[in-house]
Amino acid sequence: MNNELQTFTAEMLPVLEQEMRSILRADRANDAFYGMMHYHMGWVNAELQPVEVAAGKRIRPLLCLLITQAAGGNWQQAVPAAAAIELLHNFSLIHDDIEDASPTRRGRETLWKIWGIEQAINSGDAMFALAHLAMTRLADRGVDPAIVIHALRRFDETCVALTEGQHADMAFEKRSEVSVADYLAMITGKTAVLLGLCGELGALIAGQPQNIVEHYAQFGQHLGLAFQVKDDILGIWGDESRTGKSAATDIITKKKTLPVLYGLSKSTALRDLYQQTQTDETFVRKTIEHLNQLGAREYATDIAISYSNTALEHLHAAQPAGLAAQALHQLAEMLLKRDY
Amino acid sequence: MNNELQTFTAEMLPVLEQEMRSILRADRANDAFYGMMHYHMGWVNAELQPVEVAAGKRIRPLLCLLITQAAGGNWQQAVPAAAAIELLHNFSLIHDDIEDASPTRRGRETLWKIWGIEQAINSGDAMFALAHLAMTRLADRGVDPAIVIHALRRFDETCVALTEGQHADMAFEKRSEVSVADYLAMITGKTAVLLGLCGELGALIAGQPQNIVEHYAQFGQHLGLAFQVKDDILGIWGDESRTGKSAATDIITKKKTLPVLYGLSKSTALRDLYQQTQTDETFVRKTIEHLNQLGAREYATDIAISYSNTALEHLHAAQPAGLAAQALHQLAEMLLKRDY
Repeated sequence: MNNELQTFTAEMLPVLEQEMRSILRADRANDAFYGMMHYHMGWVNAELQPVEVAAGKRIRPLLCLLITQAAGGNWQQAVPAAAAIELLHNFSLIHDDIEDASPTRRGRETLWKIWGIEQAINSGDAMFALAHLAMTRLADRGVDPAIVIHALRRFDETCVALTEGQHADMAFEKRSEVSVADYLAMITGKTAVLLGLCGELGALIAGQPQNIVEHYAQFGQHLGLAFQVKDDILGIWGDESRTGKSAATDIITKKKTLPVLYGLSKSTALRDLYQQTQTDETFVRKTIEHLNQLGAREYATDIAISYSNTALEHLHAAQPAGLAAQALHQLAEMLLKRDY
Repeated sequence: MNNELQTFTAEMLPVLEQEMRSILRADRANDAFYGMMHYHMGWVNAELQPVEVAAGKRIRPLLCLLITQAAGGNWQQAVPAAAAIELLHNFSLIHDDIEDASPTRRGRETLWKIWGIEQAINSGDAMFALAHLAMTRLADRGVDPAIVIHALRRFDETCVALTEGQHADMAFEKRSEVSVADYLAMITGKTAVLLGLCGELGALIAGQPQNIVEHYAQFGQHLGLAFQVKDDILGIWGDESRTGKSAATDIITKKKTLPVLYGLSKSTALRDLYQQTQTDETFVRKTIEHLNQLGAREYATDIAISYSNTALEHLHAAQPAGLAAQALHQLAEMLLKRDY
């Protein structure tokens, strides 16, 4: 499928990657300090030798760059912001992996697993600082200083929201009662605000007025919400061969995702079932039966569709233009596709 | 002793404290998320109830504010930067305490000890983001946007240096050979650059040209180096009744400080002694005998004096003016006083 999204992606990603390597001091990739960060980015192996591994999908920076272009700006000017967002995302992954005690990510050992928790905390801190340095590079690309400061303020307000979302997520693990409203607030902070930031910074750098900036921000944020809820549905009813994620994973780990929280709020029988510690095949089968009877899948699907529609309404209201607007629609379609 | 330093301190600290409380959302001190940060700052207890405890000495923000004033600026304008520096320092303490597994700080339990490592990592991240938000407030005080961006860049370059210093410090624990040069580079990153930043931001906000900014930066950095080496000397030969730190602490913990590294580089006998795992009274007595014979105390004292002199030369070259200049000299004197 040869479309605008592919054309832009092929043009933008190498430039983005180059910018990130420059910020993470490619000249010092052999130093242990920078090397650990290069490992996390998928550029070197644990011996700090160059490798080619499947890196992240870079959805966030791509969204930011496409919005700059579709909002009448020049995507090249927004590259430092796109790099900053991707580094911010990766800093949060380094710390999340410690906090969640995850031994692997994208099929590779996590930073803390190789270099220890102490060094991994510090490595995340360094990447957080470097993400900010990336943002200050906007000034070197001719972005108006007042816009750079405004963008930096929104960058850090978003960081605070991310940590508040992560705080809530960790607190939920220890709470027996979590409402659907609490959950939606948590995923807004933990994942959606960062996609909102992509829209916001892209439009700001393109020089758009506040009402258009807000439409792009809301587009990004609702795209993030819709995508997260879709991920929740796939975590229970997903087709392993298509999602690459083993079906019912979220039931086995008793993860408190939207369909489960809805089910728990509606059924005493399901709450009783969730008291048991063993999560064997029978537990999984019974849970899914309960959720199906309660209409949890339809409930979550309706919410995902509602978020998708809101996202697209904001995109429409923002009046994106040119080939980049086509690419934006294609990116949204790809993320929101109902493959469940 | 009623002097200029005391007068400025009494005037500045309440304003600084007010700014930090505003950034850390005093209106949400009862929320677990902000409450943990308020606990670390010494404003509430573990039950999030207001308390009065001995907070940090706030040396860094005081240095920044005095330099702004002595460099011809208005210290009120620099309050957001001073608050940002103190919050940055405190974020690093939250993470250092996890990395060093320290159960207490200033006589109170550390954040991770009360709320767990996961939440403490996240709480540090939040404070790091909030420190940046404090910096962006400079724009609201009428500081020129180009200066705000320059200050933010230096702020984050300093953060990177701090994490690189912390990386080296942790790596040293596991290395058998650490040179004096490696050590001095490590303490430059881990502590001195932050005092350098105080000088730099103070002079930048006062609108000084680059050569004067550099003198203030070098003044702060060498002040930090001198103070750290002095601390190393007190950690071995300090008078417990005056320092509040038990004498020879650093020998018992086999900490690789300047006098010890110098001794190890000069004496095979001391290297052999440091192979033993038990650090009893005999070990401490023998180590100090070795260090005394090797002239390690005089060696470290000479280095501290040399750093002190360099600091004062840069302060002189910066040509500070007015009562704030007097206060700056008094602050330097207080920090550099040879009470060993």
